Amino acid sequence: MILDMISSPKDLKSLSLTELEKLAEEVRSKVIDTVSKTGGHLAPNLGVVELTLAIHSVYDSPHDKIIWDVGHQSYIHKLLTGRKDKFDTLRQFGGISGFPKREESPHDHFNTGHSSTSISAAIGMALARDMKMHKNGVVAIIGDGALTGGMAFEALNYAGHLDLDITVILNDNKMSIAGNVGALSGYLSRLRTDPMYEKGKEEIESILRRLPKIGTRVVRLADKLKDALKYLVVPGMLFEELGYTYLGPIDGHNIAAIQQVLQRAKKTKGPVLVHVITTKGKGYMPAEVKPNIYHGTGPFDVSTGDTKKSNKLTYTEVFGKTLVDLAKMNDKIIAITAAMPDGTGLNYFAEEFPHRYFDVGIAEQNAVTMAAGLATQGYIPFVAIYSTFLQRAYDQIIHDVCLQKLPVIFCIDRAGLVGEDGETHHGLFDITFLRSIPNLTIMVPKDEAELRKMLFTALKINRPTAIRYPRGAGFGVLLNNSHETLEIGKAELLQSGNDLTLIGVGPHAYTAMEAAKKLLKQGVSCSVINPRFVKPIDWKSILDSIKVTKKLIVMEENIIAGGFGSSVLEIITQHQLIGVRVKLLGVEDTFVTHGNVDILRQHLGLNVEKIIQAATAMIGLKIANR
Amino acid sequence: MILDMISSPKDLKSLSLTELEKLAEEVRSKVIDTVSKTGGHLAPNLGVVELTLAIHSVYDSPHDKIIWDVGHQSYIHKLLTGRKDKFDTLRQFGGISGFPKREESPHDHFNTGHSSTSISAAIGMALARDMKMHKNGVVAIIGDGALTGGMAFEALNYAGHLDLDITVILNDNKMSIAGNVGALSGYLSRLRTDPMYEKGKEEIESILRRLPKIGTRVVRLADKLKDALKYLVVPGMLFEELGYTYLGPIDGHNIAAIQQVLQRAKKTKGPVLVHVITTKGKGYMPAEVKPNIYHGTGPFDVSTGDTKKSNKLTYTEVFGKTLVDLAKMNDKIIAITAAMPDGTGLNYFAEEFPHRYFDVGIAEQNAVTMAAGLATQGYIPFVAIYSTFLQRAYDQIIHDVCLQKLPVIFCIDRAGLVGEDGETHHGLFDITFLRSIPNLTIMVPKDEAELRKMLFTALKINRPTAIRYPRGAGFGVLLNNSHETLEIGKAELLQSGNDLTLIGVGPHAYTAMEAAKKLLKQGVSCSVINPRFVKPIDWKSILDSIKVTKKLIVMEENIIAGGFGSSVLEIITQHQLIGVRVKLLGVEDTFVTHGNVDILRQHLGLNVEKIIQAATAMIGLKIANR
Repeated sequence: MILDMISSPKDLKSLSLTELEKLAEEVRSKVIDTVSKTGGHLAPNLGVVELTLAIHSVYDSPHDKIIWDVGHQSYIHKLLTGRKDKFDTLRQFGGISGFPKREESPHDHFNTGHSSTSISAAIGMALARDMKMHKNGVVAIIGDGALTGGMAFEALNYAGHLDLDITVILNDNKMSIAGNVGALSGYLSRLRTDPMYEKGKEEIESILRRLPKIGTRVVRLADKLKDALKYLVVPGMLFEELGYTYLGPIDGHNIAAIQQVLQRAKKTKGPVLVHVITTKGKGYMPAEVKPNIYHGTGPFDVSTGDTKKSNKLTYTEVFGKTLVDLAKMNDKIIAITAAMPDGTGLNYFAEEFPHRYFDVGIAEQNAVTMAAGLATQGYIPFVAIYSTFLQRAYDQIIHDVCLQKLPVIFCIDRAGLVGEDGETHHGLFDITFLRSIPNLTIMVPKDEAELRKMLFTALKINRPTAIRYPRGAGFGVLLNNSHETLEIGKAELLQSGNDLTLIGVGPHAYTAMEAAKKLLKQGVSCSVINPRFVKPIDWKSILDSIKVTKKLIVMEENIIAGGFGSSVLEIITQHQLIGVRVKLLGVEDTFVTHGNVDILRQHLGLNVEKIIQAATAMIGLKIANR
Repeated sequence: MILDMISSPKDLKSLSLTELEKLAEEVRSKVIDTVSKTGGHLAPNLGVVELTLAIHSVYDSPHDKIIWDVGHQSYIHKLLTGRKDKFDTLRQFGGISGFPKREESPHDHFNTGHSSTSISAAIGMALARDMKMHKNGVVAIIGDGALTGGMAFEALNYAGHLDLDITVILNDNKMSIAGNVGALSGYLSRLRTDPMYEKGKEEIESILRRLPKIGTRVVRLADKLKDALKYLVVPGMLFEELGYTYLGPIDGHNIAAIQQVLQRAKKTKGPVLVHVITTKGKGYMPAEVKPNIYHGTGPFDVSTGDTKKSNKLTYTEVFGKTLVDLAKMNDKIIAITAAMPDGTGLNYFAEEFPHRYFDVGIAEQNAVTMAAGLATQGYIPFVAIYSTFLQRAYDQIIHDVCLQKLPVIFCIDRAGLVGEDGETHHGLFDITFLRSIPNLTIMVPKDEAELRKMLFTALKINRPTAIRYPRGAGFGVLLNNSHETLEIGKAELLQSGNDLTLIGVGPHAYTAMEAAKKLLKQGVSCSVINPRFVKPIDWKSILDSIKVTKKLIVMEENIIAGGFGSSVLEIITQHQLIGVRVKLLGVEDTFVTHGNVDILRQHLGLNVEKIIQAATAMIGLKIANR
């Protein structure tokens, strides 16, 4: 195995092209084999095997700075930079992350996870290099999907302005996560099919360079003519107009070809855009055929490609199917996704109502404000965005939706812990950042059946509304086809007791119920409340219970600071309830690592035992005070 | 006066060009006269007088939807759409807003205030129109500055993809707020100086349209050739590549020329970009000469252009000057602004250290992540962004700065109420959305002298840090040149008392002190705490005081939900302090209108009286309980 001999990118330098090509095959097998056990971003990594080898054979990391946009395609990079022995711990609790982490390796120059940040980070590093008068290269690798994210354009535009020496490698896999979106994508596709394809480009450019310049007016016309001729032969004029030297398009599975163009990029002054065409899932047939399914996957059987599926419906599926039911009743309903039709469950809607379905690409800001625009005209947009990605549209939620009281409904999947994707993907801030926004109703279903009811309820609210629900399977609760709605702002009293009030936000209502059952055996009688509404909070039901028990434990899968528990403290204060003991359980003031969700919950104390422990401490105090 | 006869845009239709030109003069005078009394966005409005008249004479509002990006340039629009009689109430409490408001007029189709949202809103409205099979026009007017904002590109890209019938009017005033930033800006400037300037364009286009198409390979080459020829004559190829018909550039002060091009835009299928060149401040010499000074201004003397200035230093000035002092000591210090060098006070830094100063344009996301990139290389970026605009970079603060524990220092001006700019400009969410982020230190100075100390302290922290301070003048506290720092995480006990604890966040420490003085006359002895640190909160000092007084009032200029007060409730709970009465004073669950800051504070109860009232209620309760 050649891979056995690679402990740092330096070891690639001595390999022949044939050896590199053999290494590509080894690496590809290793990735398929490992991800089939750990789960992970399979298709994106298979697409960049040759590209990664070429980059590390041409550049000199960590001297040169290499930044992986999004970072889910960094597995090969990790294999080559000293982490192959830990590779089987990928995405596991205590193991290596599925994303670049500066704390993991000096070869990881920037932590990524969310899309479209790499060029900005590269600008910062290039400016630093120039101020220090160092000479290192700075390279950002960004997908065509990530390029549709607004901040990528902000950075592209600014680097062009500064005329910085950076190389942006556009990893064009013709689809981002789920398909082509955006005029730029159409443009890239025209470039790919350009008949000129590199041919004769250099000669003509050299002729152009030799054209004489005489007199200002004539020079301008000559320049214009040169530009026009250049347009005829240079495919990437759009990038050239922004100040970039465009190189490509290049076959992203041809190591020698990539090496050649990267060498040229290294010698070019100013910003360079290298356009590389790759195939997502390359070399593993199931992933090549269905790259969106194998974009991110759980463990699977390598021989068949089959993934293990729970027999319980996921929240995602319940959302997707319920929205179809709703849309059949109400033709004003619109569905919007930011490049996640499958992940959010909007694929069902897209199939049934293609003309009322919009995938804006990785562009959460546009998704939210476009929804606001639709809502001003009497439509009811359901915007499905993961909790963590919704952070990108925080300002738009405040100003474009809530300030205008527009009936946009945010369907927030992946709220709470998401597991193996880790720090950048957990949805642990949404309760805090959403509940401070005026005019917004926020619901949290305790299970999949309640999610269905909340979706129907959202229609009734006719105001800005958010529903946050977790990743993965529900409880297997029977769903019916009813169109039942909930009373707005009303909590559910799951059971009544005198000693202690337990509030479990969302599915933690079940955690609370289970704890209550165990506590009863110890003689502690609990009230258990499923709040349903974070906002407007049902202060009356909650306070009525606390007035009796004088003791409260709240559990939520959100950061504690400013979360639901904090909101309960605010109403206790506002209503001048004195002498109540409260314990808030949630995520303490820290980012949460990757790993299996159950392990993480154990680790963070988001479980039955923790409630019992807190209850025992409280009851103990109660006894001591008697 | 022609203006007297205009009560709706319909009234423009019957006017001759000469009358429209006369109306332009009247409107211009009216704007100068009014803004000289009310303050407001003078230069942007003077720049769009003719443009607005042309738009409303060609389009048919409210049937056609007209969306003003940012919206600070909507004064003329307001004058023409039935609000001229209220125009002298502009930006005053209870008067009309300085920004479009749907609740004010059916001609205001979308509330704006923050940059770069108009094209997204236009997409939503155009999609709605098409689904309803209506025929109205949808027009977004966006500045060249706002076009650098990422979400504008997200929308431009998506509208091009959808091939929607929308018109984007690019109001190119060659400077946005403070100057040209971005490669796109360079591109626009090349377009402006293009010698071809419309000449012969239509003829050649018509020739191109008649070129025959034969055979697929040949067609492709012919297409390419056509494109190249088009490039020779069509200035806006960058936009054309994204699917837009580019019309322009047009003189934005020539009503007839604009009308003509808008008529052409109306007839064009698919997205159209109309490039209009305007002069900021047009027609008022002081504003034409210094458009950045008159971008947003307080009341001024029309004859001289002089604005009234406070003799107290503003927080902005203290920040700007202190940063220069810091940068003299430490050459790793970098300053970054998003198009607000004057507004943030970074103009001082820019002058002293031009090579360590970066204005990224209206691109907050890029600003923050670029700062993170710089910080990975040992630099210490001070990122100065207003509280409300920082919402745009919420996700980047979390992931790119705080997750990586990078020493980026956020200098957050305009935190709290800002006054006349109103709902979209108050900084009322930052304490909530920032304090939930792990690894971030947050400071709030009680006055300008403490701001200076906090800036020096920030350097010592060497971790992600935020300092939030208000708009406008400080207390006139004497500043010294010392380099004093504060103890990290330590509150300031301003006075000690036994009956009641008052916490005033930021400048409300003074409000609390004044209230304490008055309460003492009523026999109530107060502890007064200036918390200094929102995070890490000095729980010990605060709890020590509350343990004595058992009564607490907190005042902050932030939304109450999840704010500093809420954080105090969390520590009281965490430390199991039972039986404490608390009153949280801040902004209730509502957006705050525009108006003079003192009036707004009165209105919201952010004043001494409110503290005394709350204290009286508490002490009363105490007496009753005795």
